[in-house]
Amino acid sequence: MTVTEHTTRNGVDTATLFATLDAVRGDTELAKFQFRATNRWLAGTHNQSTIHGFHGAKQDMTHQQPFTFDADHPAVLVGNDNGPTPVEYLLHALAACLTAGIANVAAARGVTLSEVSSTVEGDIDLLGILGLSNEVRNGYQRIRVAFTLRGDDPEKLRAVVEQSRRRSAVFDVLTNGVPVSVDVSTD
Amino acid sequence: MTVTEHTTRNGVDTATLFATLDAVRGDTELAKFQFRATNRWLAGTHNQSTIHGFHGAKQDMTHQQPFTFDADHPAVLVGNDNGPTPVEYLLHALAACLTAGIANVAAARGVTLSEVSSTVEGDIDLLGILGLSNEVRNGYQRIRVAFTLRGDDPEKLRAVVEQSRRRSAVFDVLTNGVPVSVDVSTD
Repeated sequence: MTVTEHTTRNGVDTATLFATLDAVRGDTELAKFQFRATNRWLAGTHNQSTIHGFHGAKQDMTHQQPFTFDADHPAVLVGNDNGPTPVEYLLHALAACLTAGIANVAAARGVTLSEVSSTVEGDIDLLGILGLSNEVRNGYQRIRVAFTLRGDDPEKLRAVVEQSRRRSAVFDVLTNGVPVSVDVSTD
Repeated sequence: MTVTEHTTRNGVDTATLFATLDAVRGDTELAKFQFRATNRWLAGTHNQSTIHGFHGAKQDMTHQQPFTFDADHPAVLVGNDNGPTPVEYLLHALAACLTAGIANVAAARGVTLSEVSSTVEGDIDLLGILGLSNEVRNGYQRIRVAFTLRGDDPEKLRAVVEQSRRRSAVFDVLTNGVPVSVDVSTD
């Protein structure tokens, strides 16, 4: 009989986390990932994305199930409110990335968490996307994240958030931008 | 009896769309919106956001219902796959924003659509977020969107996509970045 030590903190399997880090250190090609979403227009501003397959660790993989998400505009923006607006998903992505990072960093440092909650606000002036001003940008003008953490020593908790921010993929994309190409086929 | 003319194209109520544009032209304060998400950590890399209230057109509003979304890491990234990763939500947001814009622009221009579908791919090297390289960025290195459109004349369809891209809030945020502040309370 083999006894496997499973060290779990904050719901993070730290033994596997550290083993994964070691594996990637030994073969950096394992770190190359490609994520994907497919989207289908339904009617008006209502459309739906499916997220299922991705590539990583040198193989094509899938999530355990396909995830589907509706996006739409609310009535005040001439939609039917079948889902959040696309820009609201950005706020969710940011909160989710920073929170997952907080859990991982805390586990790696041996910091205990009892609560991590956050509110994200994004200010946007729609004069841009409505084409009514060329001085107003299309996207958010600013985004604010407010975290509440409970658990270990407050100073340790703050340091964990800061490290998560420094290593967050979504924070990087949203603050620094990324090259995006758009191709069109009409066959 | 009043006969109201409802001109709908591609599922877009163009009469209401143009009336909305006129209203905002007359009072640009109506265009100031604030979107919000709240997030709660569950365990490990699993967390959940709720999107419900927002501010716009000078009033606090809510979506018809609260929308909740789970994010997690797949097993290969030491999670339990209870939802897509945060970075995959960015791809969905981008496809959704461009697609909603395509529907609106096409309707405003009298261009008929029969299909709008897309695939979005994002390349990311996890050496950044894993803290194993300081040369590799944390976020996506590039994102590619591939649209397929059917309906009207191909040239008109391509012009509609281009105009949607030029006025997309998510495309702007992802390509140009936005200031993000992160506050922490440990009370």
